[in-house]
Amino acid sequence: MQARKKDKMEENIITIEDVKASIRNIPDYPKKGIQFKDLTTAIKQPEIFHFLIEEISAMYMGRGITKVVGIESRGFILGGALAARLGAGFVPIRKPNKLPAERYSVNYMLEYGEDSIEIHKDAIEPGEIILLHDDLLATGGTSKAALELLSHFNPEDIYLNFIVELNFLNGRKVVGDDYDISSMVHF
Amino acid sequence: MQARKKDKMEENIITIEDVKASIRNIPDYPKKGIQFKDLTTAIKQPEIFHFLIEEISAMYMGRGITKVVGIESRGFILGGALAARLGAGFVPIRKPNKLPAERYSVNYMLEYGEDSIEIHKDAIEPGEIILLHDDLLATGGTSKAALELLSHFNPEDIYLNFIVELNFLNGRKVVGDDYDISSMVHF
Repeated sequence: MQARKKDKMEENIITIEDVKASIRNIPDYPKKGIQFKDLTTAIKQPEIFHFLIEEISAMYMGRGITKVVGIESRGFILGGALAARLGAGFVPIRKPNKLPAERYSVNYMLEYGEDSIEIHKDAIEPGEIILLHDDLLATGGTSKAALELLSHFNPEDIYLNFIVELNFLNGRKVVGDDYDISSMVHF
Repeated sequence: MQARKKDKMEENIITIEDVKASIRNIPDYPKKGIQFKDLTTAIKQPEIFHFLIEEISAMYMGRGITKVVGIESRGFILGGALAARLGAGFVPIRKPNKLPAERYSVNYMLEYGEDSIEIHKDAIEPGEIILLHDDLLATGGTSKAALELLSHFNPEDIYLNFIVELNFLNGRKVVGDDYDISSMVHF
């Protein structure tokens, strides 16, 4: 906690409320009734982007994270930065037929339909400690599918991190109580 | 140069040849005759990933980069990490109909067919200094289209960086002599 307090003082002005305010709400996107949270207005601001990376990496520093796994494609942006900051390798989970080598695949239901995601079979070694990152925790369908992919590797630990969590969709329940989940901003 | 030499000494063991050796070649992917360069085997290794980010950011440190623009989706991985390292904001260039707000769009020919890419109209302010990053410089079609998108913002300067450049495809010529281009690994 001491380290995080110090970081906050060094940031001087940025708070989680500033991050929240920097996220653009797009009504009825991609479908009527959906309030889409657009993070591009947040991460284009160096102070906000920097604040997010420092806050998230401070949470996971010292936990022995060896791989940050980011979910295509918005999960790549902070995922790559977090891997760099934590001294970990980066592994992409991608849409179907995007990864060129042998891969595990899983189908799942998502907020707006059905989809599948994949990971390379040689991406992770048994016993690694993984930080799974995506920009958004909504219904939890994508995260659950990603965890299914990661189970192939018998990791020692998996942490989940999101920038935004839509609390009213109860994604946390879908992911399950077994996992350590953090989200920076809640709606 | 002094700073880069020092970095290399601190890295101790990693060289560009190590990076090159860590890239997996996938023959006949996605089409017969194409030698696909798979970077996942490079960036999953913390030392290689770290080396790439430190080497690239050392080149652009002190040039006043205010935005790193990454091209979807592999350009997001190091793009995000470089923005963080350089204290810049991050801006995504995305495939059609992925960005939710008002956007510029451009069609272009690419190695395996035709495509278009887009950027938010409010992504960049006039006079900014941009580092455009993608994983691969092949025919240069995507980069040229990205530069066309960026021209809408009247930036003060644009630098281009790639992890891999396929020299025999002459992408540099397509991009043009007006630009400062760097690539870490050449095939």
